Amino acid sequence: MFFEGSEKKIEVIVTPATPSLRSLGKPFWEEMVAKANAEILSSVSNDYCDAYLLSESSLFVWDDRFLMLTCGTTTLARSTLHFIDSLGEEAIAFATFQRKNEYLSHLQASSFEQDLQALREKLSGVAYRIGHLDSHHHYLFCSDKAFSAESSDATSELLMYHIRGEAADYLRSDNQSCAGVRQLLALEEMLPEFQFDDFLFEPFGYSINGIRGKEYMTIHITPQESSSYVSFETNLDLAAQPIDIFARLLAILNPGSWDVIGFNAQLDTRGYPEHLCLGSCSLSLEQGYNVGFSHYQQMCHEVLIPESM
Amino acid sequence: MFFEGSEKKIEVIVTPATPSLRSLGKPFWEEMVAKANAEILSSVSNDYCDAYLLSESSLFVWDDRFLMLTCGTTTLARSTLHFIDSLGEEAIAFATFQRKNEYLSHLQASSFEQDLQALREKLSGVAYRIGHLDSHHHYLFCSDKAFSAESSDATSELLMYHIRGEAADYLRSDNQSCAGVRQLLALEEMLPEFQFDDFLFEPFGYSINGIRGKEYMTIHITPQESSSYVSFETNLDLAAQPIDIFARLLAILNPGSWDVIGFNAQLDTRGYPEHLCLGSCSLSLEQGYNVGFSHYQQMCHEVLIPESM
Repeated sequence: MFFEGSEKKIEVIVTPATPSLRSLGKPFWEEMVAKANAEILSSVSNDYCDAYLLSESSLFVWDDRFLMLTCGTTTLARSTLHFIDSLGEEAIAFATFQRKNEYLSHLQASSFEQDLQALREKLSGVAYRIGHLDSHHHYLFCSDKAFSAESSDATSELLMYHIRGEAADYLRSDNQSCAGVRQLLALEEMLPEFQFDDFLFEPFGYSINGIRGKEYMTIHITPQESSSYVSFETNLDLAAQPIDIFARLLAILNPGSWDVIGFNAQLDTRGYPEHLCLGSCSLSLEQGYNVGFSHYQQMCHEVLIPESM
Repeated sequence: MFFEGSEKKIEVIVTPATPSLRSLGKPFWEEMVAKANAEILSSVSNDYCDAYLLSESSLFVWDDRFLMLTCGTTTLARSTLHFIDSLGEEAIAFATFQRKNEYLSHLQASSFEQDLQALREKLSGVAYRIGHLDSHHHYLFCSDKAFSAESSDATSELLMYHIRGEAADYLRSDNQSCAGVRQLLALEEMLPEFQFDDFLFEPFGYSINGIRGKEYMTIHITPQESSSYVSFETNLDLAAQPIDIFARLLAILNPGSWDVIGFNAQLDTRGYPEHLCLGSCSLSLEQGYNVGFSHYQQMCHEVLIPESM
């Protein structure tokens, strides 16, 4: 019962001359999502943002930008190519396409190298792999047009692997509910006034989008024992929150290892469980983004259980 | 300039009624090696063993057993199927087929699952994955026939990732030689009276086989910066050696992480560099083998260098 939780991600900022992306309407975004082999399950909106919950992750659309995350064996590069074809390359001010290392990369429809080759036929950019191939690593493509990011344009991601303990047990149980998961993760407490939209998958799995003004958060949970994965992503200024959200999620979900990826993010590791930071990287992009990647491991030995095949 | 160093491995013990495997002759073993898309480069022999150095790793043939290791994108499962077809399933007393996790599994000709499916059509057995998919892991298939291993039938493997320092620099340099690598690794000192056969590949890479009576050792080095890998394997009783061979190799090659795999092996971690054992497993097979797998990481933080793509 394997499901690939690891996400692919595309984020695009359009030029000021481009009409509002929200005005493109739901059929446009349905088509975008379909290109990745996903579908829209539900949505919430406020004055700034339309947040779509997908069959495989999330889509957030603001007037000047969008963010789409998809997991499983989705073909997100095809959505990206479709967007460029639809609006024209000149509409794009800045774009990134990213892939986390997958649990089972050979089951994916394409490799990052193949995605990169297709993207570069439509959009010029730089690309990197951060991290060793035999450990957690992250692939990043960024357009190389002149662009200057606002310093407040920050994104923080926490990717948790091999969750353990009571919360993990609950997320693998038959009697869970959306309200129960929100409470388990203390989401209402940590993220007051957020408008949430969540979904519990059969037999397992949970997704939630939340928006508050221009701010967003999203969590995706793949709880299956041998390949559990939970991702949290937000554009909140985490340093300005009353609660240390990453530390709290780590304490609740107790992952064996986790990665933190930030774009201009202020991150504080003091509340993390006792850990070894196996590796970290700081990469400055010309457009004013500082990309950080760090891979953490709990400071304890694990007895590995052989998995019968 | 990527090369997959991670090996696949088949080891077969034949029944007493089976003629000597050495008497099958070189053309038989050439065909076996060709099935994996490799070729024989050279060989050494003594009264007990024929040791073949391959274009991609090694083959050792004794009267009652053989061991074949191949790396790159070789198709070792096809060699295994060919052997079973040639000698008949009833000639097999015990067989294991193993694969280490690859750096780039999506470039392989087949997945372990696919190999397993093909093998099980000819030979019944149990199979396991040991270790998490997002970290170092090992795949193991073993025949499930009645068989009783001799307690002296031990194998020890040391797999080193991301070698660093002077020895790594030498192995990536233009001016290396076979004698220089043997000296670098202190092989004559650690393994006296062994008959060696080694080969330096262009532009990089080194393989050596060594035999002494019924004992064998083999080392394969893929030094390339972003995916370096060095494997050492032997049936020596390591606990009985005057020099702690694993500790010495770790000190010389200074890998960022390493795995130890043993079949009935007595292993001592006291001489290892300061490390965290991320996970370990002990698995008892009915045929009298205790399989151990441990994944170690140097106890230090690594600054990751983004790799341009």
